[in-house]
Amino acid sequence: MPKFDGNGLLTAVAIDHRNGALLMLAHMNAEAFAKTRETGFAHFHSRSRGKLWMKGESSGHVLKVIEIRVDCDQDAVELRVEPAGPACHTLAATCFYRRIADDGTLERIID
Amino acid sequence: MPKFDGNGLLTAVAIDHRNGALLMLAHMNAEAFAKTRETGFAHFHSRSRGKLWMKGESSGHVLKVIEIRVDCDQDAVELRVEPAGPACHTLAATCFYRRIADDGTLERIID
Repeated sequence: MPKFDGNGLLTAVAIDHRNGALLMLAHMNAEAFAKTRETGFAHFHSRSRGKLWMKGESSGHVLKVIEIRVDCDQDAVELRVEPAGPACHTLAATCFYRRIADDGTLERIID
Repeated sequence: MPKFDGNGLLTAVAIDHRNGALLMLAHMNAEAFAKTRETGFAHFHSRSRGKLWMKGESSGHVLKVIEIRVDCDQDAVELRVEPAGPACHTLAATCFYRRIADDGTLERIID
């Protein structure tokens, strides 16, 4: 089982299982991790709001979890997911939709 | 430019640009981020040792950075990299080499 840090959290990275795209990064406490395994949909712990949330609970853009992988030191998990719509709250397909150009500016590269 | 948290850190996710594989997750402070951009090789900040390290500095398994992407709220970065050898210190191709089976045990799925 994964190891939670001093704040009771671990980092979860959501990857689209169909094409390997990095979709988003969020945090899980033990409750969010258990809910994710129990329901098959990604749940996270909001550090700002201090509570459990299901990704897509208001937008409908849920992440169906196909597989959960853990890293070597077990403090991070990879969620292999099937997204129902855009993963980002900005409605981009992924939260990582901009690259840093050589001059330091941000360039949008993904719709 | 990315935003560092209260501890001066952001989360960096390394993705193999050739096949989209999630390789590893680590943290960067401003120094590690600047060194990564300056040298073209992934540098991180070790929270346990409290210092800068270049991934592969002892093993030779460096990560050449092809592109850096930032997420919507700019507190995480995606490093699109070309790895020189296995990314994990266990010599697995990726740190995320095990999946959590339905019964909660860990199954190795990647060499």
